[in-house]
Amino acid sequence: MSVLLNGVEKFNHRADAIESLLCVGLDSDIKRVPVAYWADEHAQFAFNRAIIEQTHPYAAAYKLNMAFYEARGEAGWRDVRSTVKYLREHHPSILTICDAKRGDIGSTSEAYARAIFDDLGFDAVTLSPYLGREALLPFIQRTDKASIILCRTSNPGAGEFQDLIVENKPLYLHVAERVSREWNCNCMLVVGATYPDDMRQIRAAVGDMTFLVPGIGDQGGDVATTVKAGLNRDRKGLIINSSRSIIFAADPAAAARDLCAEINRSR
Amino acid sequence: MSVLLNGVEKFNHRADAIESLLCVGLDSDIKRVPVAYWADEHAQFAFNRAIIEQTHPYAAAYKLNMAFYEARGEAGWRDVRSTVKYLREHHPSILTICDAKRGDIGSTSEAYARAIFDDLGFDAVTLSPYLGREALLPFIQRTDKASIILCRTSNPGAGEFQDLIVENKPLYLHVAERVSREWNCNCMLVVGATYPDDMRQIRAAVGDMTFLVPGIGDQGGDVATTVKAGLNRDRKGLIINSSRSIIFAADPAAAARDLCAEINRSR
Repeated sequence: MSVLLNGVEKFNHRADAIESLLCVGLDSDIKRVPVAYWADEHAQFAFNRAIIEQTHPYAAAYKLNMAFYEARGEAGWRDVRSTVKYLREHHPSILTICDAKRGDIGSTSEAYARAIFDDLGFDAVTLSPYLGREALLPFIQRTDKASIILCRTSNPGAGEFQDLIVENKPLYLHVAERVSREWNCNCMLVVGATYPDDMRQIRAAVGDMTFLVPGIGDQGGDVATTVKAGLNRDRKGLIINSSRSIIFAADPAAAARDLCAEINRSR
Repeated sequence: MSVLLNGVEKFNHRADAIESLLCVGLDSDIKRVPVAYWADEHAQFAFNRAIIEQTHPYAAAYKLNMAFYEARGEAGWRDVRSTVKYLREHHPSILTICDAKRGDIGSTSEAYARAIFDDLGFDAVTLSPYLGREALLPFIQRTDKASIILCRTSNPGAGEFQDLIVENKPLYLHVAERVSREWNCNCMLVVGATYPDDMRQIRAAVGDMTFLVPGIGDQGGDVATTVKAGLNRDRKGLIINSSRSIIFAADPAAAARDLCAEINRSR
């Protein structure tokens, strides 16, 4: 099934099937993974598999932030590959997102696209807009996948460049408009939960496009406010990520179930 | 020696010692590496070592673009590590640049900085400015290293966002000014050789800051024009990269020597 759908469609199917907009962020920092796993050569994969088995009934997507795996070198890279393979085999309807924030010139983007989409087998990848659409074509042209462009990030200092005013509009809104109107239909946007007013403004500008939403929980984003600000006309359009507050919870299944329910109460 | 210097100082010492502003880009795409290496499990490292042995007399820096290694997964990652280790052991005075264009929120940037500076052992890394200085602090605060911020990239579509006008100035100039005035003294900028007029404007705005310059050769940048546009008052300030036209040349040593000499003729 998944080969026939692009990333956006795959997410929508899964979101409808299990009634969930939740993305579980497998930010499996080895320093925070329980000591019991440390002796395992495949520690991050073993931890991820346990988390997936507990949380998959509530997960419309899983997102792996590459930084926490690259910090472990080759072993971490292998654990990313094993995790995506495991998801494709056991839970093929769940969207897999590579949170890598890549962006390079065209010939180099081709190599990244091959690594992320083909070698590792992800459905979607996060990308930086700074080099423009032309540089990202090797990602964007993959209509079987999804390209998720940084627009309004969740960090406290996000505004340094994103808030600069270009023709009476902040830069992040220009990025949103260009991506939605002139890039491709298999693109999504990263819009942080920590700036709900900006999310509302972006939603008004881009129609029903899907947002990947970091910043809930630890970073201070509020669930009800976010859902109200960002939902599209189809009562979807949001992939709401939570990482540490689920995967390092005493009971990850309960944490995922509760957040999924909290999101649905606001839909 | 290298532990006492930050990245900028390390480059300047080497540039003076061998009279060279040349950076050899080890973009060792496995598909273009000679067939003789393919059977080697460490193909990219073996190829890089051969290139380094031929080109090091002319190299002030080596730059590894991570995409071409990530495309080979764990094996590629291991070959990056072996290459940097080899350079540290045999040519410790040459600057090593990780061309990764990373950029994530603070807690995640910490993991990337650990991976690139500590685990792999690079002296410098390329970073995207879109999330702002606050997000990149884990890199920028490493005063023993160098952070190289994307400013004016070399690709044909670079202007889509970089040329947007903010208070009568293009965005790339805002990035250049903020980084030079408000970020840190161990920062450099990426400024493409394909836009010499923009390079001239950036040089005028930022004083003697060092630029990493892609875009010479295959991409169309001209050596003499670039040197004239970008040199600082110290007759340095440019790390001029060439990748494929050196490493895939019939005689890499001659290609490096000739480009180094061509650059020096314009200084």
